[in-house]
Amino acid sequence: MRRESKPIRIGPVTVGGGAPIVVQSMTKTDTRDAAATVRQLHALAGVGCELARLAVPDTEAAQALPRIKKESPLPLIADIHFDHRLALASLGAGVDGLRLNPGNIGAPERVAAVVRAARERAVPIRVGVNAGSLPQDARRGSVAERMVAAALAQVRQLEALDFDLIKVSLKAFDVPTTVAAYTGIAPLIPYPLHLGITESGLARAGTVRSAVGLGVLLFLGIGDTVRVSLTGPPEEEVAVAYEILKSLNLRQRGATLVSCPTCGRIETDLESLARAVEAHLQKIDKPLKVAVMGCVVNGPGEAADADVGIACGKGRGVLFRGGVKLRTVEEQDYLSALLAEIEKLAAP
Amino acid sequence: MRRESKPIRIGPVTVGGGAPIVVQSMTKTDTRDAAATVRQLHALAGVGCELARLAVPDTEAAQALPRIKKESPLPLIADIHFDHRLALASLGAGVDGLRLNPGNIGAPERVAAVVRAARERAVPIRVGVNAGSLPQDARRGSVAERMVAAALAQVRQLEALDFDLIKVSLKAFDVPTTVAAYTGIAPLIPYPLHLGITESGLARAGTVRSAVGLGVLLFLGIGDTVRVSLTGPPEEEVAVAYEILKSLNLRQRGATLVSCPTCGRIETDLESLARAVEAHLQKIDKPLKVAVMGCVVNGPGEAADADVGIACGKGRGVLFRGGVKLRTVEEQDYLSALLAEIEKLAAP
Repeated sequence: MRRESKPIRIGPVTVGGGAPIVVQSMTKTDTRDAAATVRQLHALAGVGCELARLAVPDTEAAQALPRIKKESPLPLIADIHFDHRLALASLGAGVDGLRLNPGNIGAPERVAAVVRAARERAVPIRVGVNAGSLPQDARRGSVAERMVAAALAQVRQLEALDFDLIKVSLKAFDVPTTVAAYTGIAPLIPYPLHLGITESGLARAGTVRSAVGLGVLLFLGIGDTVRVSLTGPPEEEVAVAYEILKSLNLRQRGATLVSCPTCGRIETDLESLARAVEAHLQKIDKPLKVAVMGCVVNGPGEAADADVGIACGKGRGVLFRGGVKLRTVEEQDYLSALLAEIEKLAAP
Repeated sequence: MRRESKPIRIGPVTVGGGAPIVVQSMTKTDTRDAAATVRQLHALAGVGCELARLAVPDTEAAQALPRIKKESPLPLIADIHFDHRLALASLGAGVDGLRLNPGNIGAPERVAAVVRAARERAVPIRVGVNAGSLPQDARRGSVAERMVAAALAQVRQLEALDFDLIKVSLKAFDVPTTVAAYTGIAPLIPYPLHLGITESGLARAGTVRSAVGLGVLLFLGIGDTVRVSLTGPPEEEVAVAYEILKSLNLRQRGATLVSCPTCGRIETDLESLARAVEAHLQKIDKPLKVAVMGCVVNGPGEAADADVGIACGKGRGVLFRGGVKLRTVEEQDYLSALLAEIEKLAAP
């Protein structure tokens, strides 16, 4: 059971209210460099990113926004800290969402001005906290409790201004802390939740940490949009986000390769075969399931369960399609036989 | 709260009963090649693997076991299918555990002979099911229900022979199915559970799928030993297993890098810095937490929370140790300053 949430719209993309869980990322280019930023937005759109956030740290960055917005294939969310004029400029440039905390914008009239402008344009605001920047004056308690209190304070500030196009995040590096924070706030507010594990690190460690943290929350039914944070190219963040969602059957994107880890029973170069098949599957849009299996123990069962599969024995393998054994294939023909079947199924 | 389980011992390693969650893998060499298998066992031990399974598909493989066992730095589990003589030969060679299903060994007297030999040597047996090789006669129901029924049947067969050195696994490619199967069987038996997601694929997809599946189960308190299955080198399986356990604070191994994903606010080449620091951290055994952060928004908070950290601004950064600001560092000195602090903390 997914947690119910009040839907918001960021440009044409619905977040919450039972909509498919939205995959987002953030540009890592210098926002002042509009051309580079637009290139990265196109790259992100190409791998299935659905929303893009970009930092707007200064006036020059804000001045690049109109061109970026005009050429962006994705709805844009401006990430603002400290300076309410940057939020107003971003709204003026037509961004589709804001990420800011009223608590760090300063004087109440400045917050009110930003909220008024956002309301006029029906632009949602994400508020939230990172464990790394909790206000010093947050009340006592565990880190997760302080995160919930701090996020609630931001929410209440917007609600007091009669604004409810709200999305909320509570990010930490520590997974149990993150899970406790999101599960803590989930029943207290009706707004959609943006999931993320902050500063999760380089590819392998960050991928695992994000998959565990987001996986647990999504399994618990919590989360309306996800952002995987990795020190590396943002396209990789999107790829990992989809793998997380696919593993819980929450989204489909492209083909899925089932391949065995191999063991002392293996009698073929399964890893090379699996890599060659995966490279080919990158180009397939349909949600096909392809199995590349290395022995007779689990091979036939998994291969038969896939749309296309092969169970490789000594020098020959058995090709399956849709649970039906097609024929025996010689080792040198494994790849071509699989690709031929994949082509047929992938044809429009 | 972790599920309580009856401990077993595989060689000197305790699994279950509140022991630390054990990391295991499987050799992918041809078991008949004792030298290659022993080399891989040493490589696995070097990255922290605690138990190793190896396939024993034929008599020649069984004949290699005495030498492998003699030279192995790790307790060994023989993976047996179909032929009870291979199980007896493996026990004779001194293996520390067996992986077999009585249901696929055949005649009752053969199963009894294996169980008797295992009991004499106090060698535990892992039973279990893979969704890909469910018996055709498993009773109706969901895949997870059929997996639970099939695994219970294997357990009952051993119990009927007065054998209780049992460990159980229920693996599937589908994460929700796997979670349903393990949570289904957990309250029904007292034995430790071996977690895995089968045939999870090549590095990225398999890492994510394993992290989500094992992460959810471990978060729910289920699991006494884990094996990550990846099509690739087994050392990578061990590295991913530790990252999963570290992310839930269930095990510690080596240093942890906290690094931000970077964004349009970045004013330094953070990814290169993070990679250089991570390369250095590979050599550190102590559970240090090192933060490499790219801006003033979350940087100082996360950096201050780490044992050593740097928050990089424009041309200079702030170095922290144990929550205390040490000094400002020029950009060209980021790496050397961090490494110098890491060296001090890592010193015995």
